[in-house]
Amino acid sequence: MYRSPRSSTPHRHQSRLASALALLACAVALPDAAVAAESPDRAAIRAQIDARHDASIEELRDWIALPSIAAENRNMREGAEHMAMLARGAGFQHVEILDTDGHPGVFATLDAGAPKTLGLYFMYDVKQFDAAEWTAPPLEGRIIDRPEVGKVMIGRGAVNQKGPEMQFLQALHAIRDAGQTMPVNLVLIAEGEEEIGSPHIRQLVYRPKVQAALEKTVGVFMPFSMQSPDSPPSIHLGAKGVVELELIASGERWGRGPRKDVHSSLKAMVDAPAWRLIKALDTLVSEDGNAITIDDYPVAPPLSDEHRAMIAKANARSDEAGLKKALGVDHWIDDLPWQQAQERLVSQPTVNIEGLVGGYTGPGGKTVLPHQAVAKIDMRLVPGQQFDDAVAALKKHLAKRGYGDIEVKVSGGYNPTQTRADSAIIQAGLTVLRERGEDPLLWPLLAGSYPGFVFTDPPLSLASGHFGLGDGGGAHAPDEFLVIESVNPKVEGYDGAVMSYVDYLYAIAR
Amino acid sequence: MYRSPRSSTPHRHQSRLASALALLACAVALPDAAVAAESPDRAAIRAQIDARHDASIEELRDWIALPSIAAENRNMREGAEHMAMLARGAGFQHVEILDTDGHPGVFATLDAGAPKTLGLYFMYDVKQFDAAEWTAPPLEGRIIDRPEVGKVMIGRGAVNQKGPEMQFLQALHAIRDAGQTMPVNLVLIAEGEEEIGSPHIRQLVYRPKVQAALEKTVGVFMPFSMQSPDSPPSIHLGAKGVVELELIASGERWGRGPRKDVHSSLKAMVDAPAWRLIKALDTLVSEDGNAITIDDYPVAPPLSDEHRAMIAKANARSDEAGLKKALGVDHWIDDLPWQQAQERLVSQPTVNIEGLVGGYTGPGGKTVLPHQAVAKIDMRLVPGQQFDDAVAALKKHLAKRGYGDIEVKVSGGYNPTQTRADSAIIQAGLTVLRERGEDPLLWPLLAGSYPGFVFTDPPLSLASGHFGLGDGGGAHAPDEFLVIESVNPKVEGYDGAVMSYVDYLYAIAR
Repeated sequence: MYRSPRSSTPHRHQSRLASALALLACAVALPDAAVAAESPDRAAIRAQIDARHDASIEELRDWIALPSIAAENRNMREGAEHMAMLARGAGFQHVEILDTDGHPGVFATLDAGAPKTLGLYFMYDVKQFDAAEWTAPPLEGRIIDRPEVGKVMIGRGAVNQKGPEMQFLQALHAIRDAGQTMPVNLVLIAEGEEEIGSPHIRQLVYRPKVQAALEKTVGVFMPFSMQSPDSPPSIHLGAKGVVELELIASGERWGRGPRKDVHSSLKAMVDAPAWRLIKALDTLVSEDGNAITIDDYPVAPPLSDEHRAMIAKANARSDEAGLKKALGVDHWIDDLPWQQAQERLVSQPTVNIEGLVGGYTGPGGKTVLPHQAVAKIDMRLVPGQQFDDAVAALKKHLAKRGYGDIEVKVSGGYNPTQTRADSAIIQAGLTVLRERGEDPLLWPLLAGSYPGFVFTDPPLSLASGHFGLGDGGGAHAPDEFLVIESVNPKVEGYDGAVMSYVDYLYAIAR
Repeated sequence: MYRSPRSSTPHRHQSRLASALALLACAVALPDAAVAAESPDRAAIRAQIDARHDASIEELRDWIALPSIAAENRNMREGAEHMAMLARGAGFQHVEILDTDGHPGVFATLDAGAPKTLGLYFMYDVKQFDAAEWTAPPLEGRIIDRPEVGKVMIGRGAVNQKGPEMQFLQALHAIRDAGQTMPVNLVLIAEGEEEIGSPHIRQLVYRPKVQAALEKTVGVFMPFSMQSPDSPPSIHLGAKGVVELELIASGERWGRGPRKDVHSSLKAMVDAPAWRLIKALDTLVSEDGNAITIDDYPVAPPLSDEHRAMIAKANARSDEAGLKKALGVDHWIDDLPWQQAQERLVSQPTVNIEGLVGGYTGPGGKTVLPHQAVAKIDMRLVPGQQFDDAVAALKKHLAKRGYGDIEVKVSGGYNPTQTRADSAIIQAGLTVLRERGEDPLLWPLLAGSYPGFVFTDPPLSLASGHFGLGDGGGAHAPDEFLVIESVNPKVEGYDGAVMSYVDYLYAIAR
């Protein structure tokens, strides 16, 4: 599942810094000059973006009002149909809903008669929400003034990912409305299960006609609001893979300990699944919790000199102190200096405890001996490591150490994504940024994850990445927002973000 | 805190077996013959119990309708005042409310001009409850038919401990109403913090006038519904002590890791408090989770031959298979046979995980690196181990192993309780049971805990224990109940339980 580093950061300031983490914060001055395009009439297109601004905002509001939430099986068919309608409206000639063993996806193509074809990855689902935690209704799309940011739209999906996706579709409307030639053909695959780990994305992408269509593309990109007030955008060359799972120790499976919670006094003669979980967990990582000690775990390749150099270049312009402050962290692992910490972030696989839950979890205590204890784990994978290998190694390790009864309940995840810097979709992004007068950076690998593997792994072996100007925050959190009118000249508002997609499409075509 | 082994057993069947665990299930035939008393006119007293039955039930209902819950600071003053009113009504001439640094207690004395004085320990507080989980309103005291049990009153506190306490007070009413001589003087101390671990009971019991009054007693007993349909009551000679605490690993105290939850991708460069907790927990117990490995932990003395013999005698009449089935346990620790398992239950201190909670605890996963993780722990202590020593050893151990930053947040607990078999309060209980034709058992030590230490430790060094016929269940659980009319001839109903207290008082006087 793609979870932007913004995912866990409910407030704007956190969002910004988490974004900096992924995309590498670095401060450069932005020129006032607009990007000079070669062939299209940018002014005409820009005029159409302005003319259709209110209509596009209204379309985004309507989309936000229809939340598709896979985990709740909410509006999934309706969401796919809405996605299909939006694609048709934006000029896709062929649009169809594809069923899977899970929730449906949408496959669409736009044939512009162009020499090049670009792939698009969309998600029409959004994260769960609790309206009680929001200061504005999560499904209304209300536009409010946010101090030091500007006018923002509040809504679930505003930035993750309906907002950027709607901005991309608005770019297609504007090119057409301005009477300009669509510079590339498009192949769109949209899924409704991104927020639950994309369990059926292979059934969409590897369907013969979809695969055949994608094979003709120069790569697959996802619209993404990559700006922040503190730093110019940088372009990533991939993302870590992830395994999300629960380790469940239970009296039932163990055959020891109780099959239901019993009084804690019984600990004197009854075995405890909670202690078993602790002992098993203890074998997975080193004493400091930072090195993986799972037997025969897939080996992470060393960081390449090329990637080390990218990190060094980025670090020269990044704000370590600001990130530490925003994260509430005083020391990186092993007190590493900034460069080595960032190298670790990029190059190291992880085994992380997302959550621990067992027995009594309320305030104070309760004298029970729990029949079950669970550790929620995520394991990030770097290119060179495979999802299946990591899961198999973990299971084998537990069995070998005598913990074969501990259930390994995998709930989602996928392989890492890796894309070459010289691919068209990466170079097009760099071109748009350079033509804006920026000095963009490349970043080797997002520490977060998204299901780009389905495009970059065989059989497709395509490039995959993100691009898009604009800003937002609060993904997965209350008060998720998208910037509509920016008070910061370094950050584009809604229409500027739309224009960045216009420029991107023409850059791909060159 | 006294938590009956019934505490964690919401349903009757569980309750029964948990009770069997503590009090040692053993099946003997009950004779029909009533107990022959020596001096009092038992028939006259019994007639008054009958005559006042409805009034006493109504008083119990009124008491249940006023739940005092220390954890919620609910009705504490009102609860103490109600307790005082009930004591006055039952004949205590001196009744006063005593303030503490926590919630108030009640001190009362009844001077019968008798040679002997008996101490009483009451609690007026009850456990929290969630009315939505109950099939009858928890504060109504509704009487319903329970299959194979009889008429029972449903209500929070019905058996833990308002019901048995009200039955005891009804015994006092009945003796007085029958014109009989009160056989002993009484000293009552009632607290309102039993359910939160009796943190201020020393401030009540060691207040000079209370201590002076208690010094004159032959021991301190608590009314307790000790019958079950499967087994005759047995009398315990003490209870384990307990320490309840939380071990909290946090980025804040550690100085490493984050001070708030951050995105899990950061695990590659940020230390994890959750792993730190796992590593620290791992040092506390042996690989199988059953032996304490805390450095310099207070040593548990070996089981005495006398206690081993008590266990063997009880085992000859107990139902191991039934208990295993009720608990959902297939094997005791180390596959011990019944006798050795019971010896372990009586003699071994424990370190138990009551609960684990950290990071994301909802359904599925969430990609966070938690800033904090907590293990809720209870440590049971056997006689010879002191509460303070256990806490000090744990803290020293953690510091020595390099986990000094892990907070040891002690929320409650106290020393073990131990009482000699030849003490008056134990012998009186045995006498009442034998005069009913039963062959009662002694049990060395409850594996559960109650704050009897405050009476049995110096300076008072008194005997302390429980006694009372009748039955009930669901303590700390929904649908807590007290048997009012029993369909099982081996189990007393409300009035029979009251009569058992009458007999107990006269037995003490002999």
